[in-house]
Amino acid sequence: MNKYSFLDDYSEGCHPSILEALSKTNLVQQTAYGEDEYSIEAKGLIKQQLGNQDSSIFFVAGGTLANIIIMSSCLRSHEAVIAPSSGHIVVRETGAIEATGHKIITVPPANGKLTPDSIQQALNANAHFPHMAKPRLVYISNSTEMGTLYTKSEMVALSKICKANNLLLLLDGARLGAALSAEKNDLTLKDIAELTDVFWIGGTKAGALFGEAIIINNPTLTDDFSFHIKQRGALLSKGRLLGIQFVELFKDGLYFEATKFANEMAQKFSLGILECGFKLSAETETNQIFPVLPNSIIESLQGKFDFYVWEKIDDSHSVIRLVTSWATDEKQIDLFILHIKKVL
Amino acid sequence: MNKYSFLDDYSEGCHPSILEALSKTNLVQQTAYGEDEYSIEAKGLIKQQLGNQDSSIFFVAGGTLANIIIMSSCLRSHEAVIAPSSGHIVVRETGAIEATGHKIITVPPANGKLTPDSIQQALNANAHFPHMAKPRLVYISNSTEMGTLYTKSEMVALSKICKANNLLLLLDGARLGAALSAEKNDLTLKDIAELTDVFWIGGTKAGALFGEAIIINNPTLTDDFSFHIKQRGALLSKGRLLGIQFVELFKDGLYFEATKFANEMAQKFSLGILECGFKLSAETETNQIFPVLPNSIIESLQGKFDFYVWEKIDDSHSVIRLVTSWATDEKQIDLFILHIKKVL
Amino acid sequence: MNKYSFLDDYSEGCHPSILEALSKTNLVQQTAYGEDEYSIEAKGLIKQQLGNQDSSIFFVAGGTLANIIIMSSCLRSHEAVIAPSSGHIVVRETGAIEATGHKIITVPPANGKLTPDSIQQALNANAHFPHMAKPRLVYISNSTEMGTLYTKSEMVALSKICKANNLLLLLDGARLGAALSAEKNDLTLKDIAELTDVFWIGGTKAGALFGEAIIINNPTLTDDFSFHIKQRGALLSKGRLLGIQFVELFKDGLYFEATKFANEMAQKFSLGILECGFKLSAETETNQIFPVLPNSIIESLQGKFDFYVWEKIDDSHSVIRLVTSWATDEKQIDLFILHIKKVL
Amino acid sequence: MNKYSFLDDYSEGCHPSILEALSKTNLVQQTAYGEDEYSIEAKGLIKQQLGNQDSSIFFVAGGTLANIIIMSSCLRSHEAVIAPSSGHIVVRETGAIEATGHKIITVPPANGKLTPDSIQQALNANAHFPHMAKPRLVYISNSTEMGTLYTKSEMVALSKICKANNLLLLLDGARLGAALSAEKNDLTLKDIAELTDVFWIGGTKAGALFGEAIIINNPTLTDDFSFHIKQRGALLSKGRLLGIQFVELFKDGLYFEATKFANEMAQKFSLGILECGFKLSAETETNQIFPVLPNSIIESLQGKFDFYVWEKIDDSHSVIRLVTSWATDEKQIDLFILHIKKVL
Repeated sequence: MNKYSFLDDYSEGCHPSILEALSKTNLVQQTAYGEDEYSIEAKGLIKQQLGNQDSSIFFVAGGTLANIIIMSSCLRSHEAVIAPSSGHIVVRETGAIEATGHKIITVPPANGKLTPDSIQQALNANAHFPHMAKPRLVYISNSTEMGTLYTKSEMVALSKICKANNLLLLLDGARLGAALSAEKNDLTLKDIAELTDVFWIGGTKAGALFGEAIIINNPTLTDDFSFHIKQRGALLSKGRLLGIQFVELFKDGLYFEATKFANEMAQKFSLGILECGFKLSAETETNQIFPVLPNSIIESLQGKFDFYVWEKIDDSHSVIRLVTSWATDEKQIDLFILHIKKVL
Repeated sequence: MNKYSFLDDYSEGCHPSILEALSKTNLVQQTAYGEDEYSIEAKGLIKQQLGNQDSSIFFVAGGTLANIIIMSSCLRSHEAVIAPSSGHIVVRETGAIEATGHKIITVPPANGKLTPDSIQQALNANAHFPHMAKPRLVYISNSTEMGTLYTKSEMVALSKICKANNLLLLLDGARLGAALSAEKNDLTLKDIAELTDVFWIGGTKAGALFGEAIIINNPTLTDDFSFHIKQRGALLSKGRLLGIQFVELFKDGLYFEATKFANEMAQKFSLGILECGFKLSAETETNQIFPVLPNSIIESLQGKFDFYVWEKIDDSHSVIRLVTSWATDEKQIDLFILHIKKVL
Repeated sequence: MNKYSFLDDYSEGCHPSILEALSKTNLVQQTAYGEDEYSIEAKGLIKQQLGNQDSSIFFVAGGTLANIIIMSSCLRSHEAVIAPSSGHIVVRETGAIEATGHKIITVPPANGKLTPDSIQQALNANAHFPHMAKPRLVYISNSTEMGTLYTKSEMVALSKICKANNLLLLLDGARLGAALSAEKNDLTLKDIAELTDVFWIGGTKAGALFGEAIIINNPTLTDDFSFHIKQRGALLSKGRLLGIQFVELFKDGLYFEATKFANEMAQKFSLGILECGFKLSAETETNQIFPVLPNSIIESLQGKFDFYVWEKIDDSHSVIRLVTSWATDEKQIDLFILHIKKVL
Repeated sequence: MNKYSFLDDYSEGCHPSILEALSKTNLVQQTAYGEDEYSIEAKGLIKQQLGNQDSSIFFVAGGTLANIIIMSSCLRSHEAVIAPSSGHIVVRETGAIEATGHKIITVPPANGKLTPDSIQQALNANAHFPHMAKPRLVYISNSTEMGTLYTKSEMVALSKICKANNLLLLLDGARLGAALSAEKNDLTLKDIAELTDVFWIGGTKAGALFGEAIIINNPTLTDDFSFHIKQRGALLSKGRLLGIQFVELFKDGLYFEATKFANEMAQKFSLGILECGFKLSAETETNQIFPVLPNSIIESLQGKFDFYVWEKIDDSHSVIRLVTSWATDEKQIDLFILHIKKVL
């Protein structure tokens, strides 16, 4: 690959300190299947941040696995999920949730987000029981698939309508680091633990090789959860790998450092593009940037960089998507902006 | 029940000639599980109308069962269904299709119907493979859940886009009798057999106690189909019951007679309401009538008749739904209209 | 069919009084989906026999459906069923239970029956959690697939081990009538309701056209049960059909009369065969008879009667299976025995 | 952990050369989801050994995932699996296969293995179609869960009966390295590719952090396979991790070296125990050793070593299980044997 890639935030391996930890512990014998010392330590570190010693924490190696396991453990077969139509489980998991037997009721998103109103409408439209599946779980992502953030007051409102309607609230945190490190963010891990029934902290896009930490805050959902991890193929023999990585991410704040760096690079990237006189199709809240550029410039950039052309605007302009990460090479942003300026 | 019901087309038992046939054959011993003489005779009668001796025909006792069995037999777990968001499988089957593992991609309906355009848009929006489930089957109903009809040219166009995109076409015929007996209809059973891969003929709403005939026209879908009937709990021990009923429905045209009568009663009902000076929210194409009435009249009618209040129009008007059937008592329509006139 | 059939107990239609009831009520309008007057009446009649007004009763049209719905409503996906390897769900339902996602742990049966010992062994062999599915429901049939009976003390013992191990007890009553009408039986419907969490009363083999009554005795299993009936395709539009039939079966004892007659015919049949000097491979406890006959006689009988050749004994002898029912023509038993005597 | 562990072959991290490769490639940008250069290289290396450029190869991170994906991609819902009752999918995967909807027909194993006879018996006992699920795939493991091996002639015989009965043959290779490196082994990867429809090569127990290579030899099974990898949550964002590891394992023979070392350690261990005058309950064919020891010695060993007590023999003797691996410390075997001698 000769071109520098801004395609996604998982084009590199892992943060060097994780690699170092893997090396240092490599030949230490450990109990298998997540009962190792590192996993226990990692759970302790995360619980400190949650401010809740009674949470249950489980590590798995992938976001789709996390979603599959949570749904199949928490829901009976007649129970449905309410999700924005832009949700990852709706458009990027190949029907994984339906494959476990559950209907997803989709709702038009507002900037990638659900609102109490949209949930209420879904409830109203799905109330002809027992001829309709019963809404039971609300699925949101933070940051969303569009790079946007939930504010604390938005989360409080969602939590409230869920509780009032006996709905579980699940937050997909594939990019939770990016969200919590965003300038505009006013949520903490503790808030999220209090406001959701279950959520997961994504490691893959925050410097880990892989790894998601599922946090169950609602104690009625804990029973037999681990059977589902095994049944869905997610119980790693060498569970230590997940423990070691989450220790590194949470022992000294690496998780938030790494995602904050990605967000800062995105801000720099955005400013550079604005300075060139181009617009963004959406404000840059986390590590995804959506510039609107002339097609001629896009084509020229494609000779040197990899990125997605996201959406056609008119005959001569398109939106592109640029993603930054913990590993982004700042010089490449400079080169990218410089290239635009040169072409101009 | 003191009030006369226009709630649906399944409030009575069955057409008297079916009851008579059940009585006449009651003590004749027959092979179980659908291998009886009556089922064989019924299949022959239906094949005559299809003009295709190579179709495969299977009887089951319920429309949701028919849909479950067809999907689970014809689809692999990564394959999805395209359906109008008003489709029975979407809003009235409690997530039955998802419970067998398949995603339904919903499309906004046009008068309850799918169009080649709406299918093409669903294909475009679901092409990011393998991160998205693969559209493989298109589900339509005729008559639709809104009482509307497909024309022959519409069906030809749907069949064409399906074939061009390797999509199976399934027609849910819960009210196929009402459709084929409608004044505006220009389709035959033979056409439908030629234009779909699989469809089913609903007996329940056409004078049977219960019973749906699944017709497979695409021979690649026949293999091992019967295993799915058994696996989903639909293999009646006394399969004769389905055979006897379909013999009665198809030996002398009862199926079309019964549904034609229902449609005629709906036309009479519609005219009566129009004569009273009220509008219909949709043209009456089959056996469902959707008058717009003042709420005061609706309340008064509710004292004597059962029917659904379907939709609020404004503060003083609502749409109601009236359904006629093979068993509708014509005098009750007269009384209904008379009651409106009196109130006026 | 020129030969008289002893193949099974569902070769005829239904008991004439059921047909009469269907005729008498045919044109009475009723609420759909099981909310009709007859279904309500039938539930009341059954509850009287159960001695438990708090049971929940649901009617469905088939035994496999009953089993599917019960399992999918009562079990989470990691929970397994313990069943005898001869159980109907194991060998005659095409993997229907597995198709809803549940493992069946099979246990060698003792005369078609489970024992506390065999359950304990299954528990011991399936305790390596969470690497093994968790046993949660015990499935038995009465009468069993081999025509044998559970005694009250056997049922008490099963109930005890189930309660002690947090296992639900489900009794498949496809032939419960035959069991409760058997000479050796010492159980009542009330006993069964007290000793199981859920069971079902089979109508199909006791004079109904079709129909099974699911009785839930454990109130924790009632929540949202009806969603599963709909989701699995078992919610008949004309639910009245189930109500009408169960009213007939339970209002004056027809259910027990019909099955008692079948048992008596089986006793007569057994005696006749013993008198001819032949043995039975198993004692006749209900309506299934398993004579051991010379192959030459079997071949000769096959010219006049239909029945299954069940098992080869040696080069010149086999076991055949004869089944009697509410509809058995006593004269045909006489002719059968006479034929044997003639051949001898 | 102060005691040395012989519990399993996945108590350490990975072979140092794999760690080195991960480090060396860490910051090289790569395409996600398995389209990276390393994965392509690894597939090429494996294909060389298979002698079949037309095989399809897919990497996933876990054996249960591999089994789930293969079954759900290859089977229709009425199709069943034949497996030995000791098979990993039967007793160590929490009903994962059933959770995808498929019945497993279990067969008593002969030394952990299936035979043509046992398969034929399963076919005979499951032929009452469509009332029984249809056997379609035969599942075996090599080395087996008991540490035993299939010979080439045994594999040829299995392949033959499978082909004759339209059964797919799947070989679970969680410990395929141990099998192919065993002294008695006469099979090659090429043989296995020719004799099975699909198999997988386990990396986890052969020096990888994790990783299984699924090899599809039957081209009819390749279509859309990748959808199932994604749908079951097994499509790693950083698929490079699997590629890098399999390059290391297969570029210079590390895979066979590592497993051969484990087998040699097991031979040494076995000899040591035999020299002490104790028996093995089964011959040591791969890296699992099953000594029969007095309970007093076992208790004494438990003070210094971790291992499983496998089975009670009599009141004073038990079988223990010892597992060696690529990482086994030879000195610890010496210490173990020395400890026995001291106690004696």
